[in-house]
Amino acid sequence: MELLKQRILQEGKALSDVILKVDSFLNHQIDPMLMQAIGEEFKKRFAGQEITKVLTVEASGIAVALMTGLVLKVPVVFAKKKKASTLSGNVYVGTVYSYTRQETFDIVVQDTYLRPEDKVLIIDDFLATGEASQGMVSIVEQAGAHLVGVVIVIEKLFQSGGQQLRDKGIWVESLVQVKKMSEGSIEFV
Amino acid sequence: MELLKQRILQEGKALSDVILKVDSFLNHQIDPMLMQAIGEEFKKRFAGQEITKVLTVEASGIAVALMTGLVLKVPVVFAKKKKASTLSGNVYVGTVYSYTRQETFDIVVQDTYLRPEDKVLIIDDFLATGEASQGMVSIVEQAGAHLVGVVIVIEKLFQSGGQQLRDKGIWVESLVQVKKMSEGSIEFV
Repeated sequence: MELLKQRILQEGKALSDVILKVDSFLNHQIDPMLMQAIGEEFKKRFAGQEITKVLTVEASGIAVALMTGLVLKVPVVFAKKKKASTLSGNVYVGTVYSYTRQETFDIVVQDTYLRPEDKVLIIDDFLATGEASQGMVSIVEQAGAHLVGVVIVIEKLFQSGGQQLRDKGIWVESLVQVKKMSEGSIEFV
Repeated sequence: MELLKQRILQEGKALSDVILKVDSFLNHQIDPMLMQAIGEEFKKRFAGQEITKVLTVEASGIAVALMTGLVLKVPVVFAKKKKASTLSGNVYVGTVYSYTRQETFDIVVQDTYLRPEDKVLIIDDFLATGEASQGMVSIVEQAGAHLVGVVIVIEKLFQSGGQQLRDKGIWVESLVQVKKMSEGSIEFV
């Protein structure tokens, strides 16, 4: 997606060979019009597929998932990062290790919001080691729902997450693939 | 907002005299079309006001803030609940006490994304004791920006947060005001 590449080159900051900061339009400040364009692009890539629900994880996945849900006209579910006090009844739980924060946490979805008849599109902002995506794939499996695919805004191709998902036969689409990074430099595929 | 009242009556669950669960369309599963309608309504209420930025706090404020940002065509900033490892430079910090979680946490906005020339609309899903809103008001003040107003999806009028903000001369708009709640019963103004 050319628009997104340009935006990353203009505003993104490679802080190291793994950390890409895109706080000005995706992760802290959000550009709603760009999110809408991303939603439209995701819709195009999965044209003809029946999708009944979009699944993401809080917090930075919510914006892009919501806009994709709006374009597709389906509900969005965001997995919560721990068991919130108002979640009741049965929940699906995925375990995620965050390399950024160096800690393991659970992501949780109440069973009411993912049913066996659902056709689910998983969305996340970044794909690196794939921990969050794998946690969401596990949640879709626990629900007995059908996984349509995984869509990602920025994939770090030099990390193994995307490959692992594709090796499992999962349809993965990423809008931008970063081939290589170092401090101050970003190279796309 | 009649549409929202109906939705709360149909799907909301009053778990006690203070906890209202609206997980099926606002806090866990999100209805993007309802969020869009809410964004349009907020725009109408602040018609004629110049707004350059929407401010909310992660995670459940993001959806409604994003859709309002889309309707107003301005960027959305979400305060983060703790100092993330990729936040650098100067930040504004607000301290918030959560009655739900019974803990105090910081909300943080990097100074780059709120400037003295900004005209800010603060958005949140709930207003009860007003802790999160007060934290965001403090952040707007630290930035030296102009606060246009505070908009809320659901205000619990029997708690003091809204009154405290209005007593400070802040323009507060809430789409639905809950006058009284008890287990299984919700009464609007």
